[in-house]
Amino acid sequence: MSVIKINPKLDLVLEREIDVPVELVWIAWTTPRHLKEWFVPKPWTISRCEIDLRPGGAFNTTMRSPEGEEFPNDGCFLEIVEHRRLVFTDALLPGFRPSEKPFFTGALLLEPHGQGTKYTAIALHGTEEVRKNHEGMGFHDGWGTVAGQMVDYIKGGKISH
Amino acid sequence: MSVIKINPKLDLVLEREIDVPVELVWIAWTTPRHLKEWFVPKPWTISRCEIDLRPGGAFNTTMRSPEGEEFPNDGCFLEIVEHRRLVFTDALLPGFRPSEKPFFTGALLLEPHGQGTKYTAIALHGTEEVRKNHEGMGFHDGWGTVAGQMVDYIKGGKISH
Repeated sequence: MSVIKINPKLDLVLEREIDVPVELVWIAWTTPRHLKEWFVPKPWTISRCEIDLRPGGAFNTTMRSPEGEEFPNDGCFLEIVEHRRLVFTDALLPGFRPSEKPFFTGALLLEPHGQGTKYTAIALHGTEEVRKNHEGMGFHDGWGTVAGQMVDYIKGGKISH
Repeated sequence: MSVIKINPKLDLVLEREIDVPVELVWIAWTTPRHLKEWFVPKPWTISRCEIDLRPGGAFNTTMRSPEGEEFPNDGCFLEIVEHRRLVFTDALLPGFRPSEKPFFTGALLLEPHGQGTKYTAIALHGTEEVRKNHEGMGFHDGWGTVAGQMVDYIKGGKISH
């Protein structure tokens, strides 16, 4: 049992059934060279990705706009259950140091579903206001778009078991 | 190896050699009825203590002034290595939800030292300003005082192996 409890007033949830296996979704999420190919809606790109897959380890990405402006997102992993659950936050930097710009804790939940995966992405926030801001920034479209990009990338055969 | 890295500009560290064994220090830190007896400098008291000893589990305490004013501190555990290392933060509430008042991440490091314990308490901060505030609030005196209260409590024989 995860300690994570969803509060509909504070949190955002995206649920999808996708037709790629959990093992490949896990690799797509936890390998920098793969994550860079799908993690932001195109034509934006990921110009930097650092993954240190342990509690307190770095989960740092930089998103780059088509005009070349860069937006770093630094944080760390909190909970790692291979092929099932990945929890991370930007409220703590690598090494569990409090950050200056806490925004959300993310949780990716995976379950095998036939030959595919039940894919659940959760964003936990501290207040309703932050949840509304995240929703307004396009959480559902954005996370839905990148889930689709990830499925296409996996189906392209670039990841091997 | 812990992921924690001390930065002298941002962090505060208290190191002590104490003549009580690591196993009893661990119990004193992780059992609400014991922690309540020593965790704040007297005559302040701990009026509430909730400990759910797993990553993301609650570490909530309320400090009560002699005049009866109460100061809740809610947070969660991040890393638990029995008898050796306990990491917790108020930047995340139980269930890893970002908090509204992030202040510091705490790490308790224990090492057997003869019949006693090398006791290291670390406070990690996000900025120099927060470190200075914590120092000004009396980090060294306060954490030193409660370490002494803990040793006295353990020597009083209230904790059994």
